[in-house]
Amino acid sequence: MARVEGNLDALRREIENSDFDAVVAMSPENAPYASGVLLWTQRSIRDRLALVVLPKKGSPTLIVATQEEGYCREKSWIEDIRGYIQGYKSPIDVLAEVLEEKGLAAGRIGYEPTYLSVDYYEQLVSALPEAQFESSESQFACARMVKSESEIEVLKRAAVATERALMTTYTGIKAGDVESELVARLGSEILRGGAELPAFLYLTTGPNSGHAHPDPTDYRIQPGDLVKTDCGGYFSGYYSDVARTAVLGKATEEQKSIYRRISQVHEATIKSMTPGTLASEVFEVAVEGYKEVEISFSLSFAGHGVGYAIHETPMLAGDDHTPLEPGMFFSVETRVRWPGKAGYHIEDAVLVTKSGPELVTNFMDTSQLMEL
Amino acid sequence: MARVEGNLDALRREIENSDFDAVVAMSPENAPYASGVLLWTQRSIRDRLALVVLPKKGSPTLIVATQEEGYCREKSWIEDIRGYIQGYKSPIDVLAEVLEEKGLAAGRIGYEPTYLSVDYYEQLVSALPEAQFESSESQFACARMVKSESEIEVLKRAAVATERALMTTYTGIKAGDVESELVARLGSEILRGGAELPAFLYLTTGPNSGHAHPDPTDYRIQPGDLVKTDCGGYFSGYYSDVARTAVLGKATEEQKSIYRRISQVHEATIKSMTPGTLASEVFEVAVEGYKEVEISFSLSFAGHGVGYAIHETPMLAGDDHTPLEPGMFFSVETRVRWPGKAGYHIEDAVLVTKSGPELVTNFMDTSQLMEL
Repeated sequence: MARVEGNLDALRREIENSDFDAVVAMSPENAPYASGVLLWTQRSIRDRLALVVLPKKGSPTLIVATQEEGYCREKSWIEDIRGYIQGYKSPIDVLAEVLEEKGLAAGRIGYEPTYLSVDYYEQLVSALPEAQFESSESQFACARMVKSESEIEVLKRAAVATERALMTTYTGIKAGDVESELVARLGSEILRGGAELPAFLYLTTGPNSGHAHPDPTDYRIQPGDLVKTDCGGYFSGYYSDVARTAVLGKATEEQKSIYRRISQVHEATIKSMTPGTLASEVFEVAVEGYKEVEISFSLSFAGHGVGYAIHETPMLAGDDHTPLEPGMFFSVETRVRWPGKAGYHIEDAVLVTKSGPELVTNFMDTSQLMEL
Repeated sequence: MARVEGNLDALRREIENSDFDAVVAMSPENAPYASGVLLWTQRSIRDRLALVVLPKKGSPTLIVATQEEGYCREKSWIEDIRGYIQGYKSPIDVLAEVLEEKGLAAGRIGYEPTYLSVDYYEQLVSALPEAQFESSESQFACARMVKSESEIEVLKRAAVATERALMTTYTGIKAGDVESELVARLGSEILRGGAELPAFLYLTTGPNSGHAHPDPTDYRIQPGDLVKTDCGGYFSGYYSDVARTAVLGKATEEQKSIYRRISQVHEATIKSMTPGTLASEVFEVAVEGYKEVEISFSLSFAGHGVGYAIHETPMLAGDDHTPLEPGMFFSVETRVRWPGKAGYHIEDAVLVTKSGPELVTNFMDTSQLMEL
């Protein structure tokens, strides 16, 4: 698998410019970002913490369960790796020892309060009663927001492969096909497209399209039914996130009209994504767009940064006033749903470049409702 | 998708017999268990909390992001559903309102400290300063430990489908096949077997087999190479978790010997899983077995309960003294690894029944190293 490296220099600068003596990466996004190793089990086995201690001065330390230790020694740029046997020793005790060793038992330590569980946090505070713990999430968010060249490469590859997997699945749909089997086909295509794993496969047909994230059903698709898909995979651990809506056979005038209006909002939103524009201004363009085409919109975001996390800053949301910069990578999503009845969703990968927004997922023409 | 219902009566009894005025299910395991709705985005979008308030007296309330609200209204047995618009209102504020409404603002509230983030917890404590919050994780663990009939059905179906997917993939392997392509084939087979999504696909070949959870590589498999796979999918949201080891072509005497010894430990461990035996006693059988065959073993568990979580209680671990009961469903795993060199892993689904352990994944003969 291609080696992907984030903006580690930017992360180091963020730490240097902070008041922290050390920051600790804890989440399934920040720990791989800081260590250069994907730790898959972090996402599924919650108590198997992987921690990266990044001191302001001196070298970093990676703390992982022994199951992952050998792999980390092979893959990480971090030399000091400490394994703990899960069930015999808490990763938090190892963290406390490492911070003590580094002379930081009474230091100012950055951590991840939106990730770390109360249980582990209480262990940490009691192991290091003189340390001060404060959120260093903004340091990670700032570094991760602008993607490195290798991150852009993998995010583009991921988005393009996912759009093609979706297209291949759509072109094969016939009346009578079972929704759950279409989901399986889509997942297989995403795997064939180079994903390590599909991440989510919300392919919905007919009335099910009115839901955002339902379970696959045994519904058999009929002519005139909508097919709405929001799907993604992990590519070198990075997410893809693409949505497309089509109709089997001939679309009704009403379907066409709703789709065209959504598509109009979508295009205007993407068009506004020039460097210097605030994320919140892009959101306002979307909100105004929905109003103009008379489609109800109550969600708080029109898209989101994407990377190791499916939703990451900047969020294209009213309260995110980050100015867009070249190298930021977004999923822009425009949608309307009537639960249990019908839904429409277009979601594209957009890279902000010096000369404006670059539509990465440009294989399908999304300006009109595709008839399969 | 088949409707699966856990032991909700057992959960109600646990709450009735506790000192709590209400317990709140928060995790991606307990919230679906308590509500009867799979909330897929809980697993990937961490801040999109779904909460189920289960008061000792009176009816329950489900709190979900508006994206999931319509679906929950269609699927859940809970009638009182409150949607919050993510980004505009915190789920914790809704939780505080609901607890106040139920007259529990100064109550004793059960929550999930190994799941809830510090950030959300601090919001909760400040919103309800007079309430007492304590862990109610054991109430959920006790209820979930013994599976209902419909859970056993889905867990069996999941395990069997996964073993067959693995077998289909193995029988198709030829010298020169690329590891990452085998991973994709395995994922497709798991989807074809009825999973909503593959959950993990650690198919490793040759030297890569020495790692537990590595990324897929471009290694081309050669005769004499080991193929070690630990994989699973989500079936109605429940995990499967099966591992098999084989060799391409003829195995060496050393490979056969290591495998036979692992297999001997594995069989003895499973054989010991009779009702009334403590989980820790099963673990001791495994530990003694490894010693007897002179294979080093340092991990803290020989298997784990499996359900909505990949690892759940009882753990077949030295410190888990739960007596096994009919209806408990385990993944029993026996393994040895030399990082970057070679690894062997056998993992089976085992149901505890009145008459003893039932080996669910019994399609392949795992007593000797399979030669592909």
